[in-house]
Amino acid sequence: MSDDTLIDRLKEIVGAPHVVTDPFEMAPYLSERRGLYEGKAAAIVKPASTEEVSRLLTLAHETKTPVIPMGGNTGLVGGQITDNARSIILALERMKKIRAIDAENNTMTVEAGVTLAAIQEAAEKEDRLFPLSLASEGSCQIGGNLSTNAGGTAVLRYGNARDLVLGLEVVLADGRIWNGLRGLRKDNTGYDLKQLFLGAEGTLGIITAAVLKLFPRPSAKAVGFAAVPELAKTVSLLHFIEARTGGLVSSFELVPRIGIDFVTKHMEGTRDPLSAPSPWYVLIELSSGGTAETLQALLTETLGAAMEEGLARDGTIAQSDAQAAALWALRENLSDVQREEGGSIKHDISVPVSQMPLFIERALEAVTKEMPGIRPVPFGHIGDGNVHFNLSQPPGMDKDAFLKEWDRFNRIVHAIALELGGSISAEHGIGQLKRDELAEIKSPVEMEMMRAVKQALDPQNILNPGKILTARQESGA
Amino acid sequence: MSDDTLIDRLKEIVGAPHVVTDPFEMAPYLSERRGLYEGKAAAIVKPASTEEVSRLLTLAHETKTPVIPMGGNTGLVGGQITDNARSIILALERMKKIRAIDAENNTMTVEAGVTLAAIQEAAEKEDRLFPLSLASEGSCQIGGNLSTNAGGTAVLRYGNARDLVLGLEVVLADGRIWNGLRGLRKDNTGYDLKQLFLGAEGTLGIITAAVLKLFPRPSAKAVGFAAVPELAKTVSLLHFIEARTGGLVSSFELVPRIGIDFVTKHMEGTRDPLSAPSPWYVLIELSSGGTAETLQALLTETLGAAMEEGLARDGTIAQSDAQAAALWALRENLSDVQREEGGSIKHDISVPVSQMPLFIERALEAVTKEMPGIRPVPFGHIGDGNVHFNLSQPPGMDKDAFLKEWDRFNRIVHAIALELGGSISAEHGIGQLKRDELAEIKSPVEMEMMRAVKQALDPQNILNPGKILTARQESGA
Repeated sequence: MSDDTLIDRLKEIVGAPHVVTDPFEMAPYLSERRGLYEGKAAAIVKPASTEEVSRLLTLAHETKTPVIPMGGNTGLVGGQITDNARSIILALERMKKIRAIDAENNTMTVEAGVTLAAIQEAAEKEDRLFPLSLASEGSCQIGGNLSTNAGGTAVLRYGNARDLVLGLEVVLADGRIWNGLRGLRKDNTGYDLKQLFLGAEGTLGIITAAVLKLFPRPSAKAVGFAAVPELAKTVSLLHFIEARTGGLVSSFELVPRIGIDFVTKHMEGTRDPLSAPSPWYVLIELSSGGTAETLQALLTETLGAAMEEGLARDGTIAQSDAQAAALWALRENLSDVQREEGGSIKHDISVPVSQMPLFIERALEAVTKEMPGIRPVPFGHIGDGNVHFNLSQPPGMDKDAFLKEWDRFNRIVHAIALELGGSISAEHGIGQLKRDELAEIKSPVEMEMMRAVKQALDPQNILNPGKILTARQESGA
Repeated sequence: MSDDTLIDRLKEIVGAPHVVTDPFEMAPYLSERRGLYEGKAAAIVKPASTEEVSRLLTLAHETKTPVIPMGGNTGLVGGQITDNARSIILALERMKKIRAIDAENNTMTVEAGVTLAAIQEAAEKEDRLFPLSLASEGSCQIGGNLSTNAGGTAVLRYGNARDLVLGLEVVLADGRIWNGLRGLRKDNTGYDLKQLFLGAEGTLGIITAAVLKLFPRPSAKAVGFAAVPELAKTVSLLHFIEARTGGLVSSFELVPRIGIDFVTKHMEGTRDPLSAPSPWYVLIELSSGGTAETLQALLTETLGAAMEEGLARDGTIAQSDAQAAALWALRENLSDVQREEGGSIKHDISVPVSQMPLFIERALEAVTKEMPGIRPVPFGHIGDGNVHFNLSQPPGMDKDAFLKEWDRFNRIVHAIALELGGSISAEHGIGQLKRDELAEIKSPVEMEMMRAVKQALDPQNILNPGKILTARQESGA
């Protein structure tokens, strides 16, 4: 089919205003925030309903047109970008209905294009919590969150995106619609097909709607900040607090000394909350029902007991929302302040929680040996075994020269994570950024199973081709 | 290959003493507890290692021999029974090593044949909790629990078996071993393949080992029993308590008045803990860290507040372990005492929690209309939307005549559950018992996806054939 015919048929399905072919209007859909990939496409197509997605996929199936699904375009691994100019970008942004909220069942049924922030707000209006929480929550869309199995700051208590889903509606590669929108906590009737599409980065089907789990909204929070003399003790401290509070820990985040230095230097109004410096800190948040006073008292008592056990050297508990926000600011600004210190090489690794101190120790040694003066800033979700092992450049070094070392440092850091039973992508996914590395690190049997699943659900390889699997793997060669 | 040659080759792999062909010794492996199915097999084969399972599957693949995996033989849907005399029963009972416990990572790596009780005990020794808990925990094996995505009494707080797994080791249909034994809380590196095997009832691969999640062991429990005037208020009461306690509810179980009558009549030493009768009751358990006194005070205060709101009419909180056990006895004996009252027709349904009162109301009306005098005993995990809608026979009716109505009542009750967005198998699975009904109630697209997955992973259809899918579906006809 000629390009023009394809465009005409797309317009018939979604209406002419919703097929974008003007280069200027297409541009925002063809690049991503890190600037690593520049995309191409025949058109951006914006369906308004599941039925329209189904008709688009039927057409794509018939014409063997590659289809690249796109949510809020906040992905960090190039999963939403293609360089195949025959592709259509399927933007789900017009599918933004909240179809139903069932507060008594603690569920919400939403379409793929609803932003994460809109979902959080809708839950709050019903006095419920939807716990998924990410830096990009104002613009990312739930379809993308589910397709990438997003993580964020509440995983320790509530799990990843995958754990927050009860049902899905999916359009398959040939346009058939699967209505799996169930709101059940227990349902053992055959294979759990929704698991195939969660985290598959749009390569097995297009998620068009989901039934999400809601939770009681915690009425109380308590936030503390503790100095920990040795890295190895951070994990023991986590377990101590979890045991004493019976699982009320909702965040447990590592902050290194250099992070406090960066934040207090670059962010006005911030200060070191403790009197003597320490190599490591953790930010601790408990949340529960009841009153903030009770919870603060519990955290004060627990942290006091931990200090007696030698698991922490000093600590402070926020006595007000303002104090809690000031403590969180030390953690939340860690990414931004690194920008003020020149180039930063990022990692998204995980290891078993028990291996985290050893991982950080080995990785610190390896990168420092490789480039004296480099300034590692390992921080983040140590309670999940997931730290952002970011590397700030040596002071005075040329930024571009430093960033050219990105891959080399990735290799070094990933090798240490893998040795310790870890992962090279804890929460961002594979996309195209880590696709080739994936094929190197996974066993042949695992790659073959993935290929078999891909072949079973997308035999023509039209769904987000070249993501997770290489074209060669996809074709079964 | 002749049968004798096959048996010889099996013996070469696992050793002669571990290939059972004597009819008397085979018998316990060929029948199941409900007596619904009588099985056949060429042999019972008992491998001791993953390597041996791999060699057995390679042989089965080569000879197209059906393989039926078996754990503790406690399944209730005939999933572990076959009538194909060419089959081999693969009993995992000798694979009972606990390979590793990593308390700091809150994980345990176990082989498929370890009993659930042994896993619970091993966790307890490390001051951890493995929360899966079932009536058959002394004999059921974790391989079976995971292959059937078992439920039980702690799902409300900790999820189903699927939610308690971080990694799997699986032998595929052709004998290849997939080592997916990861202990990571976050790992977004491609398709989450373990999800395929969890709950697949042994039809896609043989689970030989797993990395399980452990939790902090709650130091305190509080148990209460409340009279609820109307069914519709049970769900509101659950949400009220969850909100007030910040998610500390670990069990929330429905008990009908007739259940109290049956238990106090047949179980010596039991008594109605409340003074005035009520149509419905709930048993509530909170668990957390801290002390039992604090938690009991919280439950007392919360239940008092609920009574002021009109969500409960009366209630009692156990002040000792003995009192807690006495309250639990009212719930735990509900299955057994029905046996004393003649025949009982069972159901394993779920609906959205919000629909549960409506489901029970409609189902009560329907079955009573169908057979006046029938005595429904709906009880169980109302917090998960899963009740055992059991039906005790009318007094004086012939037991066999009543049990002949099993299918008819199943159809009536299942139809109501399905109308309300529910499931005909909440926790027991499909096996062969519900296989034909499954094909009727699922959409063609869902059945076709299941078949595609089965074909991709077991193209010769040798893994537990005739379970979940019919032979016709399996063959792709």
